Amino acid sequence: MPNRIPEAAIHAIIEAGRRMAERNWVPATAGNISVRLPGDRVAITRSGFHKAHLSADAVMAVDLHGAPEDPALRPSAETGLHCGIYRAFPDTRAVVHGHSIANTVLSRRAGDTIRLEGYELLKVLPGLDTHAAAVALPVLDNDQDIPRLQAAVEARWARMAAPALPAYLIRGHGIYVWGPDMDAALARLEGLEFMLACKMAAISLGGSDP
Amino acid sequence: MPNRIPEAAIHAIIEAGRRMAERNWVPATAGNISVRLPGDRVAITRSGFHKAHLSADAVMAVDLHGAPEDPALRPSAETGLHCGIYRAFPDTRAVVHGHSIANTVLSRRAGDTIRLEGYELLKVLPGLDTHAAAVALPVLDNDQDIPRLQAAVEARWARMAAPALPAYLIRGHGIYVWGPDMDAALARLEGLEFMLACKMAAISLGGSDP
Amino acid sequence: MPNRIPEAAIHAIIEAGRRMAERNWVPATAGNISVRLPGDRVAITRSGFHKAHLSADAVMAVDLHGAPEDPALRPSAETGLHCGIYRAFPDTRAVVHGHSIANTVLSRRAGDTIRLEGYELLKVLPGLDTHAAAVALPVLDNDQDIPRLQAAVEARWARMAAPALPAYLIRGHGIYVWGPDMDAALARLEGLEFMLACKMAAISLGGSDP
Amino acid sequence: MPNRIPEAAIHAIIEAGRRMAERNWVPATAGNISVRLPGDRVAITRSGFHKAHLSADAVMAVDLHGAPEDPALRPSAETGLHCGIYRAFPDTRAVVHGHSIANTVLSRRAGDTIRLEGYELLKVLPGLDTHAAAVALPVLDNDQDIPRLQAAVEARWARMAAPALPAYLIRGHGIYVWGPDMDAALARLEGLEFMLACKMAAISLGGSDP
Repeated sequence: MPNRIPEAAIHAIIEAGRRMAERNWVPATAGNISVRLPGDRVAITRSGFHKAHLSADAVMAVDLHGAPEDPALRPSAETGLHCGIYRAFPDTRAVVHGHSIANTVLSRRAGDTIRLEGYELLKVLPGLDTHAAAVALPVLDNDQDIPRLQAAVEARWARMAAPALPAYLIRGHGIYVWGPDMDAALARLEGLEFMLACKMAAISLGGSDP
Repeated sequence: MPNRIPEAAIHAIIEAGRRMAERNWVPATAGNISVRLPGDRVAITRSGFHKAHLSADAVMAVDLHGAPEDPALRPSAETGLHCGIYRAFPDTRAVVHGHSIANTVLSRRAGDTIRLEGYELLKVLPGLDTHAAAVALPVLDNDQDIPRLQAAVEARWARMAAPALPAYLIRGHGIYVWGPDMDAALARLEGLEFMLACKMAAISLGGSDP
Repeated sequence: MPNRIPEAAIHAIIEAGRRMAERNWVPATAGNISVRLPGDRVAITRSGFHKAHLSADAVMAVDLHGAPEDPALRPSAETGLHCGIYRAFPDTRAVVHGHSIANTVLSRRAGDTIRLEGYELLKVLPGLDTHAAAVALPVLDNDQDIPRLQAAVEARWARMAAPALPAYLIRGHGIYVWGPDMDAALARLEGLEFMLACKMAAISLGGSDP
Repeated sequence: MPNRIPEAAIHAIIEAGRRMAERNWVPATAGNISVRLPGDRVAITRSGFHKAHLSADAVMAVDLHGAPEDPALRPSAETGLHCGIYRAFPDTRAVVHGHSIANTVLSRRAGDTIRLEGYELLKVLPGLDTHAAAVALPVLDNDQDIPRLQAAVEARWARMAAPALPAYLIRGHGIYVWGPDMDAALARLEGLEFMLACKMAAISLGGSDP
């Protein structure tokens, strides 16, 4: 019999789904949300549920390599990306993945990074205590082969200056954001989505965005 | 006396109306929503009700050719399009029709299809298991003569490779989307509307969208 | 002592305010809402209240020339425009006035009309039973002298083919829409705002809108 | 022991946070909100809380120079800007600071002012009783050194014709708006944000905005 998932983790995931759905970041059954549990376990949303109104049975537990505790439950393919983040960043306790119009449209136009510069909200990112900074959000090509996509993510991290930004985009497929707890992951997500929406609006005004 | 409409069908229609209204896809009294019932019956919204707050008496039953069970109730003219979908696709159990700004604006600019390519959310469509695909959503000219419009729809289906996409647009008049149950129909609607909103935003940025 | 205002009229006004606020059509204390009462009376929102959360004491009664029944209450200056509509159109029972981004931006760019053509939602307007139609929404120059503005409205009506559209815009100052009851007035408002939002989006895509 | 903060002030701050969050003006933990209390005290949101769901313990008291009454609580760095407004304008009883997409994008493109002209909603500003007016909203360069930023604000006020507009923007960092009570501050914020959103939309249509 699989171990129970703590109530607090289920609650955090359900509430994160509700907040992301309010912002139209999890259309259809898109998006997934996870929390690291003690003992190298991960609680993660199952495939095929709408994130606006999750319930406890929409959450399952896997190990750090994505193997389900309950063999009757099939984890989402993208579980591999969540686990890859938890393996690489031991202090990470929550990962959120959403599709916004801004992150989808900008990642489809981008090269291998999207630059954000001069926004006060950059301070939502760890290690940045001023707006007078710039970050280059990684953009990875989309790939249905998740282990191959995760390998590309790890190769990108290896090329980046440490510490890596707690976020990356997949082209035409949304953003992954993580943090030391769900509130921090969601605050970083909101801050990044706000800056991406600003960047999209700035470009639509006919100007450029640094 | 007409037969009763099952509670579950009425509930599914009311809830779909509420969700579509939240997204501004059923302005004024626009849009309509239906569910296939056992025995070649269809439960469908009556004409003239706002979809944000439907009640049971806003739903009526018709046969697969749109004839009302209760002769005192006048079905919406567009009932003929819903019935045409149910006749053509026996596994279809729910049909939703909404007007979004994106589907209205893009269908007015389009030729006889709108192309969506490279979006992860394409996977919400049946038979697509990769973003590395493209679909051509049919766009039909609007017509107040519904039998003639339905004939144009059927002629289009006859020209399409099987299986047909579970959606089409009417120029300046919204989208029809269907599925094996209401959750699937709404997920497909949300996915398609998300991609259409992305396409509209991409064009507003001054670029093109493949 | 002033006569009471019927509960149903107060409820209709409060609910209309809530719906218009949800759509961001009554920012700050903008907008006003009225209902015709029996006996040539009009119930109308008082000046200075936020429309998102009206209460009964935010509604006052005036006669068809805007004179308040309770001399202690000051009616909004724009009461004169509501009364002008009720005097001109005896079947009108509800008038709503809101500021949307689309109606503000388009009216500032427009000449003396805004053309809407080919939209299915045109059918929300009385006397139109097909999308294959076009209407020219009147746009009046803004004027803080309300009697002078009302005279300009009446002069415009005199030049229009009868029956006049149940709506006009004031440049940079929002839309007035009316109907035989509040549901009809709100449906016409939603339909017109939807088409204006489509027109604004179409222009932002770099094309024109007929 | 620090003095208590009146319930009414806490309630006004919590409710303002909720309203600003509904409009997406306080992403992540951005924004801050304050109320002047009797006796040269200021109640202000603490750093690091999400404004969508504040509670009483997210509010602290400082003096007019930003010194906390409870030394165990660290005030937000931007408290200095709130206090600067209260010192300069004795009738001010509420200050709100938010980040919208429009105020962020436009302030990044602007010179040292943003001009708003011809909007009916200009009348939400004190001393303006007609749309036939224009205001130049001050735009200050962002600065993480808050005392230096406050000095720049005061220098700008010294150059402006009295009475100063009850608002200014910080480039890429949002808007500050104030008023004689919270309702007035929020109405001015809503009016200004509406006009900024209109200006952004007007520019995206390819035209200019006076």
